[in-house]
Amino acid sequence: MVLKTSRDYLDGLRGRHLDAHYRGEKVADPVDHPFVGPAIRSVAATYDLAHQPEHADLATAVSPEGERVNRFTHIHRTAEDLVRKVKLQRTLGRLTGSCFQRCVGWDALNALYITAHEIDVALGTPYHGRLKRFLRHVQANDLVCQGAMTDVKGDRSVRPGGQADPDLYLHVVEKASDHIVVRGAKAHQTGALGSHEIIVMPTLALRQGEEDYAVSFAVPTDAPGIIFIVGRQASDLRCQYDLPLDHGNARFGGHEALTIFNDVVVPIERVFMCGEAAFSGKLVERFAGFHRQSYGGCKAGIGDVLIGAAALAAEANGVAGASHVKDKIVEMIHLNETIYSCGIACSAEGLEMPSGSYYINQLLANVCKQNVTRIPYEIARLAQDIAGGIMCTLPSARDLEDPETGPFVRKYLAGAPGVSTEDRMRVMRLIENLTLGRGAVGYLPESLHGAGSPQAQRVVIAREAPLEECKQAARALAGISLRHSS
Amino acid sequence: MVLKTSRDYLDGLRGRHLDAHYRGEKVADPVDHPFVGPAIRSVAATYDLAHQPEHADLATAVSPEGERVNRFTHIHRTAEDLVRKVKLQRTLGRLTGSCFQRCVGWDALNALYITAHEIDVALGTPYHGRLKRFLRHVQANDLVCQGAMTDVKGDRSVRPGGQADPDLYLHVVEKASDHIVVRGAKAHQTGALGSHEIIVMPTLALRQGEEDYAVSFAVPTDAPGIIFIVGRQASDLRCQYDLPLDHGNARFGGHEALTIFNDVVVPIERVFMCGEAAFSGKLVERFAGFHRQSYGGCKAGIGDVLIGAAALAAEANGVAGASHVKDKIVEMIHLNETIYSCGIACSAEGLEMPSGSYYINQLLANVCKQNVTRIPYEIARLAQDIAGGIMCTLPSARDLEDPETGPFVRKYLAGAPGVSTEDRMRVMRLIENLTLGRGAVGYLPESLHGAGSPQAQRVVIAREAPLEECKQAARALAGISLRHSS
Amino acid sequence: MVLKTSRDYLDGLRGRHLDAHYRGEKVADPVDHPFVGPAIRSVAATYDLAHQPEHADLATAVSPEGERVNRFTHIHRTAEDLVRKVKLQRTLGRLTGSCFQRCVGWDALNALYITAHEIDVALGTPYHGRLKRFLRHVQANDLVCQGAMTDVKGDRSVRPGGQADPDLYLHVVEKASDHIVVRGAKAHQTGALGSHEIIVMPTLALRQGEEDYAVSFAVPTDAPGIIFIVGRQASDLRCQYDLPLDHGNARFGGHEALTIFNDVVVPIERVFMCGEAAFSGKLVERFAGFHRQSYGGCKAGIGDVLIGAAALAAEANGVAGASHVKDKIVEMIHLNETIYSCGIACSAEGLEMPSGSYYINQLLANVCKQNVTRIPYEIARLAQDIAGGIMCTLPSARDLEDPETGPFVRKYLAGAPGVSTEDRMRVMRLIENLTLGRGAVGYLPESLHGAGSPQAQRVVIAREAPLEECKQAARALAGISLRHSS
Amino acid sequence: MVLKTSRDYLDGLRGRHLDAHYRGEKVADPVDHPFVGPAIRSVAATYDLAHQPEHADLATAVSPEGERVNRFTHIHRTAEDLVRKVKLQRTLGRLTGSCFQRCVGWDALNALYITAHEIDVALGTPYHGRLKRFLRHVQANDLVCQGAMTDVKGDRSVRPGGQADPDLYLHVVEKASDHIVVRGAKAHQTGALGSHEIIVMPTLALRQGEEDYAVSFAVPTDAPGIIFIVGRQASDLRCQYDLPLDHGNARFGGHEALTIFNDVVVPIERVFMCGEAAFSGKLVERFAGFHRQSYGGCKAGIGDVLIGAAALAAEANGVAGASHVKDKIVEMIHLNETIYSCGIACSAEGLEMPSGSYYINQLLANVCKQNVTRIPYEIARLAQDIAGGIMCTLPSARDLEDPETGPFVRKYLAGAPGVSTEDRMRVMRLIENLTLGRGAVGYLPESLHGAGSPQAQRVVIAREAPLEECKQAARALAGISLRHSS
Repeated sequence: MVLKTSRDYLDGLRGRHLDAHYRGEKVADPVDHPFVGPAIRSVAATYDLAHQPEHADLATAVSPEGERVNRFTHIHRTAEDLVRKVKLQRTLGRLTGSCFQRCVGWDALNALYITAHEIDVALGTPYHGRLKRFLRHVQANDLVCQGAMTDVKGDRSVRPGGQADPDLYLHVVEKASDHIVVRGAKAHQTGALGSHEIIVMPTLALRQGEEDYAVSFAVPTDAPGIIFIVGRQASDLRCQYDLPLDHGNARFGGHEALTIFNDVVVPIERVFMCGEAAFSGKLVERFAGFHRQSYGGCKAGIGDVLIGAAALAAEANGVAGASHVKDKIVEMIHLNETIYSCGIACSAEGLEMPSGSYYINQLLANVCKQNVTRIPYEIARLAQDIAGGIMCTLPSARDLEDPETGPFVRKYLAGAPGVSTEDRMRVMRLIENLTLGRGAVGYLPESLHGAGSPQAQRVVIAREAPLEECKQAARALAGISLRHSS
Repeated sequence: MVLKTSRDYLDGLRGRHLDAHYRGEKVADPVDHPFVGPAIRSVAATYDLAHQPEHADLATAVSPEGERVNRFTHIHRTAEDLVRKVKLQRTLGRLTGSCFQRCVGWDALNALYITAHEIDVALGTPYHGRLKRFLRHVQANDLVCQGAMTDVKGDRSVRPGGQADPDLYLHVVEKASDHIVVRGAKAHQTGALGSHEIIVMPTLALRQGEEDYAVSFAVPTDAPGIIFIVGRQASDLRCQYDLPLDHGNARFGGHEALTIFNDVVVPIERVFMCGEAAFSGKLVERFAGFHRQSYGGCKAGIGDVLIGAAALAAEANGVAGASHVKDKIVEMIHLNETIYSCGIACSAEGLEMPSGSYYINQLLANVCKQNVTRIPYEIARLAQDIAGGIMCTLPSARDLEDPETGPFVRKYLAGAPGVSTEDRMRVMRLIENLTLGRGAVGYLPESLHGAGSPQAQRVVIAREAPLEECKQAARALAGISLRHSS
Repeated sequence: MVLKTSRDYLDGLRGRHLDAHYRGEKVADPVDHPFVGPAIRSVAATYDLAHQPEHADLATAVSPEGERVNRFTHIHRTAEDLVRKVKLQRTLGRLTGSCFQRCVGWDALNALYITAHEIDVALGTPYHGRLKRFLRHVQANDLVCQGAMTDVKGDRSVRPGGQADPDLYLHVVEKASDHIVVRGAKAHQTGALGSHEIIVMPTLALRQGEEDYAVSFAVPTDAPGIIFIVGRQASDLRCQYDLPLDHGNARFGGHEALTIFNDVVVPIERVFMCGEAAFSGKLVERFAGFHRQSYGGCKAGIGDVLIGAAALAAEANGVAGASHVKDKIVEMIHLNETIYSCGIACSAEGLEMPSGSYYINQLLANVCKQNVTRIPYEIARLAQDIAGGIMCTLPSARDLEDPETGPFVRKYLAGAPGVSTEDRMRVMRLIENLTLGRGAVGYLPESLHGAGSPQAQRVVIAREAPLEECKQAARALAGISLRHSS
Repeated sequence: MVLKTSRDYLDGLRGRHLDAHYRGEKVADPVDHPFVGPAIRSVAATYDLAHQPEHADLATAVSPEGERVNRFTHIHRTAEDLVRKVKLQRTLGRLTGSCFQRCVGWDALNALYITAHEIDVALGTPYHGRLKRFLRHVQANDLVCQGAMTDVKGDRSVRPGGQADPDLYLHVVEKASDHIVVRGAKAHQTGALGSHEIIVMPTLALRQGEEDYAVSFAVPTDAPGIIFIVGRQASDLRCQYDLPLDHGNARFGGHEALTIFNDVVVPIERVFMCGEAAFSGKLVERFAGFHRQSYGGCKAGIGDVLIGAAALAAEANGVAGASHVKDKIVEMIHLNETIYSCGIACSAEGLEMPSGSYYINQLLANVCKQNVTRIPYEIARLAQDIAGGIMCTLPSARDLEDPETGPFVRKYLAGAPGVSTEDRMRVMRLIENLTLGRGAVGYLPESLHGAGSPQAQRVVIAREAPLEECKQAARALAGISLRHSS
């Protein structure tokens, strides 16, 4: 067992044979790449934190074998583990102001841990043992896994088998005794270029006849046939062409990639589901459940940064004492803590599963995520309100440095005493980053769609809610003779 | 120690010397009073539940002395106790569709338990010992306490000492070695006529010079000088003049009273604070903290009833399958579970206090209550949407029974097959009760103002929030040189 | 032509042969009935206003024949007429704090005026001429018409012809050369007992085979076979059993009735549609369009009352200067004026129809009403917030009058200097009336369901919106080759 | 008089002596500048429209002198003119998907027209005559004016005279008989580089002693001493470094500049206020009133584009038939038309002023803008919801063109049949542009802060609302003896 340092992690990323592309060019070295680099630094923060004694309880955990591992590789053993997960995520969200990209794989490991056990119990398959060996490998080397669930899906009104192109959902194209071959693509792969392993899962509850799509496995990120096309983000070119001040958050960011599996060979020891369509829905639901919990932590952490930035902007503008400004900051805090409360609640109400590991309260985790699809947008709006129009008409850092315009910028964009024009500009750029720029990608649309779009949560909420009990309670009070509803 | 039955409780309420009034008349016997009776039946439900084995873990607790007591008399010893409190409250809210009125006194006991200990440690006073003896009395006899905090306040823009009438805040008018005499009034006393004891606390953080207002004590409900004037509620006359169907919820209700302390003598053994103005703010904050947690349970329970009633209404109207109706029910559930999540979160994050008892997470409890000031209103609106206009234009039950009009009502208000007109009317009356009638008092304005009006929570949220940490996080990411803010 | 006074109107209501019931009893005289009387006084206000010179431009109009008529009997001839309608409604809403019940019939007249003309042009029928003669009768005698559209509908998942009981939608049961006979019932008949004529229309767009349900006509309110069962309202018994202070709004109210047509004979001269199923949808849509416009006026007027009451409550409580209170009042005004703006906009954008009369902008009228299904609920919540908890725990007026409790009520419910306890109580009761009592029925659920439930507006919005133009605009900007969408 | 073509306009912009900067470089030619060019094309659209016969009624107007002028240079003479203004703005918003930048100066002209007349009447000054001569110049040459109101303000908690640097509010530094000299800076100057004239106004209601700040005048955009520093926008570098597909809206955009007046000489004939501090508040209020009306038009037009784009995205994804998607589009339309209704209402309720020109209803115009500070954010959220996660993880257009990755992008990002991958990408980039990119600057934070931040509208709403009438109405209904409130 090893708790890697961020230095170990960054060094280890070099020299791989990734087939990765961004804006029409090969990404030779993700670590030093102007756009991908900040995203990888966010992942690196998960390694740094594990070495900070004051965060050890959150950032590391002790495995059942008694070894201290990075918590991002830990299988939850108690409800307290689930609560710590959320607190760890909030801490890192606050630290990086971005997605740190290591949760998806963690949630995939935990979802598979429960479901592989379930399949084995039902069907006598060997999946759980394989998964535990893979887990030991991940823990022993303190690896980053990405979780790959979302197929590209083509025409969403048609099932996998009915698509014009069968590859629009990832599927098994060849099965041998010691390996399988898969083809397809997964969209929106968070943390793609900074991870060591890819854990693939199906994207929806499959039916009889769709067995080829019911496949789960792990492959190294640089396995032959894997191609990454990194997605671009709002204001993404600033990290390449502008001074750091204009980045808003120059150190950290997130990234996603379209990941193509172009006939990738997977050794049988790395296969955790293959054809068991009846269990695919459960696996999807579990992964989504864990990942919807996650958003109650990380997005609250980013919310902290945005609240802090709004408060600094109010100070820089000289309006920190205005009652409406103070009230808006209270509202931002209230909303942000509502997200967090939902994250904590679904964790504290977690339950032990037959696999021995813990699962969140599924109804509450979906409620958590549903709130995350709304609340950050209102927090962002309030932050922009407090920042003022200057947030989006601000001259560039180059204008500040230019000897001709610099003195004018400095003179005329001065704010309240004690705040330099430059610091005022920095705060504005951070708010821009989080509400309209690269950080906004992670804070806003990712809050909508990550871990499933809003409607996906509503489907689960409808299914999980104790509606029959509610109806019985209403009948009892209304004086209606009790009976079962249709 | 005894776990009273509801029969014991109801019998014990008779024959007291209450000085109570409602609509210009003396209330001779609260138990059988048409308006107060349903409220007392709601309290009685807290006794019934303690005798139901499947609810024993929630409805009872084991005291440090090893005795099983009704949980409503228990001092919280763990975060799990705090979580169980919320679950007990949700259960009873769902069971009664109303306020069951026993939480205020419970929250008062727990707040005093922490604060009396704190005063004693600081000042060497004997309050905590007195309180523990009073607590034993409450537990041994399984008593209902009401918590009396909210002074009538007169002109809210003026402090206690500045009021035209000094009695507009309750205060000590005489101090003797073995007793004190108090005068004033407390507004909105929940559960007034069904309780055995009144626990009085100050209503705000007092300052030097306001010591006479810094008083906390307990007196029996029928102590000489105590006068109750019961407040009326929406549609309150129905329980007196109408058939049960028209009550909506004929069995249960809530009630509040204006409680006047007309020179009441309090034995010194029953005094828990007397002049320690500096601690009054802490006591208020603690009581409010516990009580704001409470709303995450009880109001979610009433929300369950309303959601169930809306679902029944949809079935009765034949629209249960319409996509917009299903979506509205999902939204109601989502909102209701958001309240509950906040209740759970502030409990699971509870902390041990120097008194040995547990206190909720104060920031999250205030966030919980702030959500409760908004969410039930939207749930109520959605319930009315699903119910349809008939909810508020429905003929009376007398029209249904009238031989001339009854057949027309039955014929023309028929709904979907399998639901009788009468049952359809019952559901509509329950929704009316909870959104416009007697139940609405408890579900809507009480959700706004109970445990403090919305602005009161905002003040605490502003104070408790980690705004400085947020600002530091923002500075770090924006690249602003770190410093302490003004 | 005559502009009746309210005295004329009230006198004329006596001595009719109404078959009306309320709470299991016959209503002998609606004018002096404790529950119905206030509703009839609200209608009477429409007569009073027509005699006030400063309101003459709003409350009266000049017919094409050059005669001055009460505007509630006027066919709109210009967009300015439509705007004045909304202003008249706001004025009366503000004056009565309730539904004044004369708009439904007015909207029915205007909808029929357009549609009867349309049928005649298409089919050569004589409906428009009949309607104009009926209109002259209404104008000449300054009559109140009620509009009867909403059938009781039984199982809403089934069409009229498929109901277990064919009478659940009103239909023709006999046709003769000089009359027809109809059977069925209309729910929620606003202003039932205070009107002179009932104008019946079908409730939905009918299809081939449903011709018997496609019927529109007018009958006097006391025609043989018509039976009214008046719906009860929140806190309805107060007007019968309590002192005026406790009514909140003792002078005015609204009322609705279930109206049964038990084989009612209609002379052929009073029939405006009979079997023309293809035009029923247009008639429904037009009536709904006019009535959805109406809500932009009347509910803004009630909103004015509630805003004023909240401001008075803040003064009585001594908190009128608190920044959060001032801000909440601004929010209430903002929301209320948003409703009003939508009412004005759909009127100012009105268009001339082939009948020569004017029709509102249908998309904007539906947007108006959709806002009305939401905004009053938030205004009501804010009013309750400002009022404080005392709004729902207030002792009764009898307690104030009782010599034993009266002095205590007066002493302890004193508010800010300059406001008597009694006036403070009056304001609280008015807010209770409008948010939880009899006035709330008109301000809240009626805002949801009157003129069609929220989903009904969404259907029209979807149909009326220029979505294809929007898509073309998006294609042009995105650079997509222009084509027609599927 | 002339109606210029867009070609005339663009040609006329070349060869001026602008002192303009962007990202540390001089802007030599705004028309062909990769960032500024699209903004100037948006202005050019206002010229094009005036030559399209089907838009002549909106895009042009007839002056009192009987000459047809571009409506953007017209002084409103009727309420219908005000309504047409809003419709013109919606048309152009829909056409350009961006700010077309010509309204600010138009609103400045109209506000000055009223206020200069008012000053002259009160003080006998010659301002209105000067303004009319300037107006003739603008109309005769069909010029673009920018309106310059917002001072940079420094420390917002301090008045102009109290700032550390007196230049933080623009002020007169020299007065002569035939000219004045001014110094200061105006922030957020919309349309800066594409305008011919700058109309300067004070930024707040000034007091005695602040006369030097009470100055209004017009100068050519390239007057000596004027320096523009163009603000950057989200994703601004794409127009410089990326293929058009990735711009989202490659043709159109907006731009703002920090405009510095470095001792600019203004001939006295061009001065419209100079020292009349008492009238500055009225001028600010009038300009804001007109400009808050404007947002009811232009933002509804951009909303149309976003709604259309969301509908196209739903089709491309194959989910156009899903009930929740259809419902979200209805909600977007409802919200967008609410903005528009408010724009129409404040226009239709416009009033003639003593100057003979028309002014909007000030209360309703502020309500309009207040809605615009909220509604576009929710529309944007819903658009992102419908678009799906691919909107923010989409590969670049270069990846589509790259022979290595292009085939994979084309294969795996295929959507529903009949929509090419490329068109699907175009729609996604347009939604990105409008919600996170360059278009979002105009659609979101500009909706918050343009024409004044939300709190500015609340101040006006509080002042303009008929609160006393509302209180009187409440008193009358509550039965409170009528009196004037304190």
